[in-house]
Amino acid sequence: MDPFFSPHAVALVGASADPKKLGNSIMANLVKSSVRVYPISRTPGRVMGVETYSSLTQLPETVDLVIVAVDAKNCPGLIPDIRRSGARCAVVVSGGFSETGSEGTRLEESLVRAARDSKVRLIGPNCVGVLNTRLFNGTFTIMPERGNIAFVSQSGALGGASIYTTQARRIGLSKFASIGNAADIEIGEVLDYFREDADSTVIAVYIEGIKEGRKLYESLRNASREKPVVVLKGGRSESGNTAVKSHTGSLAVSTAVFTGMLRQAGCVTAPTLDTLFELCKIFDYQPLPKGRNVCIITNTGGAGVLAADAVSDLGLTMSTLSQKTRHEISSAFSPLASVDNPIDLLATGARWEYRVATEQILRDSSVDMLLEICVVPTFAGMTQVEHAEGLLEGVRAAGVQKPVVGVWLAGSVGKPGKDLLESNRIPCYDDPSLAALCLARAADYAQFRRPSVRDTS
Amino acid sequence: MDPFFSPHAVALVGASADPKKLGNSIMANLVKSSVRVYPISRTPGRVMGVETYSSLTQLPETVDLVIVAVDAKNCPGLIPDIRRSGARCAVVVSGGFSETGSEGTRLEESLVRAARDSKVRLIGPNCVGVLNTRLFNGTFTIMPERGNIAFVSQSGALGGASIYTTQARRIGLSKFASIGNAADIEIGEVLDYFREDADSTVIAVYIEGIKEGRKLYESLRNASREKPVVVLKGGRSESGNTAVKSHTGSLAVSTAVFTGMLRQAGCVTAPTLDTLFELCKIFDYQPLPKGRNVCIITNTGGAGVLAADAVSDLGLTMSTLSQKTRHEISSAFSPLASVDNPIDLLATGARWEYRVATEQILRDSSVDMLLEICVVPTFAGMTQVEHAEGLLEGVRAAGVQKPVVGVWLAGSVGKPGKDLLESNRIPCYDDPSLAALCLARAADYAQFRRPSVRDTS
Repeated sequence: MDPFFSPHAVALVGASADPKKLGNSIMANLVKSSVRVYPISRTPGRVMGVETYSSLTQLPETVDLVIVAVDAKNCPGLIPDIRRSGARCAVVVSGGFSETGSEGTRLEESLVRAARDSKVRLIGPNCVGVLNTRLFNGTFTIMPERGNIAFVSQSGALGGASIYTTQARRIGLSKFASIGNAADIEIGEVLDYFREDADSTVIAVYIEGIKEGRKLYESLRNASREKPVVVLKGGRSESGNTAVKSHTGSLAVSTAVFTGMLRQAGCVTAPTLDTLFELCKIFDYQPLPKGRNVCIITNTGGAGVLAADAVSDLGLTMSTLSQKTRHEISSAFSPLASVDNPIDLLATGARWEYRVATEQILRDSSVDMLLEICVVPTFAGMTQVEHAEGLLEGVRAAGVQKPVVGVWLAGSVGKPGKDLLESNRIPCYDDPSLAALCLARAADYAQFRRPSVRDTS
Repeated sequence: MDPFFSPHAVALVGASADPKKLGNSIMANLVKSSVRVYPISRTPGRVMGVETYSSLTQLPETVDLVIVAVDAKNCPGLIPDIRRSGARCAVVVSGGFSETGSEGTRLEESLVRAARDSKVRLIGPNCVGVLNTRLFNGTFTIMPERGNIAFVSQSGALGGASIYTTQARRIGLSKFASIGNAADIEIGEVLDYFREDADSTVIAVYIEGIKEGRKLYESLRNASREKPVVVLKGGRSESGNTAVKSHTGSLAVSTAVFTGMLRQAGCVTAPTLDTLFELCKIFDYQPLPKGRNVCIITNTGGAGVLAADAVSDLGLTMSTLSQKTRHEISSAFSPLASVDNPIDLLATGARWEYRVATEQILRDSSVDMLLEICVVPTFAGMTQVEHAEGLLEGVRAAGVQKPVVGVWLAGSVGKPGKDLLESNRIPCYDDPSLAALCLARAADYAQFRRPSVRDTS
């Protein structure tokens, strides 16, 4: 699989100067990459300043990856040339295969047959491509920010669009593969590769249907034993499954069976598209919790109430703080502050209150995770940045390995504080319930990873 | 209640030049308002260019609203002067009352007693204040955008912070009241007022505990019969309820009882803080649906699958399109496009495809609501703005009264298309499941409003 994600030289069949062609967008991404690029085109001359070749057999050196973006009907015939170019890996971006009906299915079968005959492995067809943020972008979507999340998607467009979303939220990816129709390489094989990838701390998966359930299960379980695998499943409902059939044409499995499989494999499930990468963020940024006890620190009761509700809904427990902690907090703060969990520092609570409360709470052995909220941006001229600084100072002073997440409310006014936290790898959310969801999934996954539990699974 | 929201002249007791005082923030908001303002301060001279008065009894004209931002202990003694100023309405922003323990409770009781003796009505204490986006801002939070959502919040800080969120999302409010400890005026009375307010099409409510259940129920039900009432309840869980007690000190009621009450009253429930105003938006922007049948139009299968899942999870139904519609769509589009619901226009589908599909689908009598998705921003140089234009043209051409919502994905790249839709009052969400939630709540509320259903309730 290595040449798919770490090629030295890449050929692009269907490179084009026409901005309406995919071969144009891919070429634009490749020329900005740190790999040698060979455009193959019927039109002699240059594309984006790079000399074109009329055929894969004319290249001045062997390439290790070929990207194909030409009409479906021309794809199977390209395989022998791909092999002659030296490559054993090809990404077929072109659509018009099994997703379009019986004629396309036959074309896809002949593509796979040709590839197997030539010992060429395929990603696609009908996909957005592959990329490695540390090396190259072999897709027609943008390059995501560099980070540690590896992402494999069964839907190309959804995968591509998600990359825009991660960019808007400054969530970094390591590698991305859109597997399209998965005619040859399926999600499982990509998972096996991502599992061993040192650049990836978390794996995100969008999946619709599956062909080989047992193999996928094993790949999911093996990967989950190494790093968190966060899965969004499309087609959980009957309506969704009908839609899957006309989308990727893949076999639908019953929701109950699939959910059970994910749980047994130790996967983290994302309930919605919006939560997929937020969940990845907590795993990438924070340690795993030792247990399910949460403490909430807030500067306003209302948000603390909502967070406590969410904690409870998700099967987490509110920590019962030790007498010592309660005493230290109550002696430090205003007599009006609540020293019960949620700790309410009041609207007047600012930097030093956040620092002291964070440190004391993290040191309390009844606390496995900390959810910290900041709401009031206009009180007495305070900004949310100073609250964020207080939180960070408290975390540093406590010096313990427990997950901490923030909920910095107040829209764009909250953003500078949120940015400060996230640049220090404290995940920060817009809603208390999303923060609680991320903590709950972290606790579930931690439980799966604990030896005693794992051995009995 | 009118002077609270539409005063001609307002006095502010505790107006201050010190930016660390609430009386400073409120004064800054009042001087930017379209009301006459009289600052009351012990310090003679001017605050923000406005001459101060030493007492409410010295004012050159009668005022109809007094805002109080001085120490709690001085509040009860102010009431006779408030009455002498001509005002029968006062907002007590000051904290330090029943939320702080038994001494504060006694102070609150004497405040209410004084107010009742003088026939002065009170909002607060311990609140952020009231505002009317068409007239004035009597709070210490920012002025929201002008719009049609009336918002009453039992938590001041959460209410204030939510206003920042609505501003960031360009959701407009009509009026806002933070009722704090609700020592005199409770949520019910505010609801009764908002129900009849011609500037408000929807009412948003954040509520924790209640004192008079029967009265609140009647206000909720009466309001729901006029306009949608979207309710976020804090303290649904045991942990949340414990937190409520130390926050507003209000009585907690069992979740089951409260949920049942909301349902019977015809209220729309918001599951999370983030969804509260998104739900308000669909009611403000779009007509109510006639039934529960949804059609999905998308340019990528994956997002259509997720939307179909969410539609199904929320108890909506996927429309079975008429033969005529299917025929017209299949003859217009690429043979590869799916004419089953979800309609998949493929990545190549652009402006005219969106226009034609939107018009045809909206005209189909099997469709009560339309959920339209746009995902691919980089395909063949297309932008999501043209898809948004196609949607709008289709809606205009169809000329029917059915709710339409958008899901424009792809982060900041999707924003211009999203902005175009929202400026044309098509609500546009970031996640298919949120769009489906809004449609489901619209269908539930429409059912409550249908005469046959309402009469039996």
